[in-house]
Amino acid sequence: MQTTITELDLVVKMTITAWDAQNNQLNKLINELTDEQWQKEIAPGKNRGIYLLGHLIAVSDAMFAILGFQDRLFPALEPVFIFHPDKAVQDMPSVAELKEKLRVVNARLNDHIRTTTTAQWFERHMSVSPEDFANEPHRNKLNIIINRTSHMAYHLGQLQLLK
Amino acid sequence: MQTTITELDLVVKMTITAWDAQNNQLNKLINELTDEQWQKEIAPGKNRGIYLLGHLIAVSDAMFAILGFQDRLFPALEPVFIFHPDKAVQDMPSVAELKEKLRVVNARLNDHIRTTTTAQWFERHMSVSPEDFANEPHRNKLNIIINRTSHMAYHLGQLQLLK
Repeated sequence: MQTTITELDLVVKMTITAWDAQNNQLNKLINELTDEQWQKEIAPGKNRGIYLLGHLIAVSDAMFAILGFQDRLFPALEPVFIFHPDKAVQDMPSVAELKEKLRVVNARLNDHIRTTTTAQWFERHMSVSPEDFANEPHRNKLNIIINRTSHMAYHLGQLQLLK
Repeated sequence: MQTTITELDLVVKMTITAWDAQNNQLNKLINELTDEQWQKEIAPGKNRGIYLLGHLIAVSDAMFAILGFQDRLFPALEPVFIFHPDKAVQDMPSVAELKEKLRVVNARLNDHIRTTTTAQWFERHMSVSPEDFANEPHRNKLNIIINRTSHMAYHLGQLQLLK
């Protein structure tokens, strides 16, 4: 480590590696669980696996907009998997459809993440105004990755119970 | 943001804030759940709340050594809550004892975290040799915080089911 710039690159990489690790865990679970297992509740009376899967995809899809990358790919997921709780919406995509959407969202999100520079990670995310960002510089794009990593870990702990 | 040094300070702060957020969630849960609820399984046949609580405290306690801060405070927790699975060890501390240990571990850990400088966060942690660290500079102290944040979020998602 020769310069401070290298340490900044390093910490960005560490943060993205932690995000990747959670996504890898989710993909591992995709390969381990049957479609029937995804239909089960994680615990009696709690969310079903399929709902949490859709929820994680919808939250990742929303990251395109928050990070200023592009429009989200599947805006129809948001009302079903974010605005409403499980079992509130009858018309839900199948597990197979959700798996395919996860694949597409992850691939595109990865493309953007790989081409974002260290300096860009410290720019404001799209949910904070330039005025607020001037006083709250922690509300940058990298912080979205940090928060979404904890969010995914939280639900992965629950999805693990389906096994 | 004038200099790269400030951005490095900022990202360390962001990382610690994310860790604090998980600990705050755990403390919130401590205030919400009764001792009886901690005795319940998070889902049928899975870990009990009390085991996961002890597990999180034991993992935080182990951070004292890994981060090079000091000796761990409660080494007796490790065999019960890390080396063995739930229900394998009969003699387990009470929920009240665990809550007190959590308070003590968190307070001491916080003291160390607050006084660690940005440069120190990029030093090697104690589980990696100087030789390996030279080639793998991401194996630093800050990365321990990043990983333990995901770990705690994972189990908090499960503990939430006790409510």
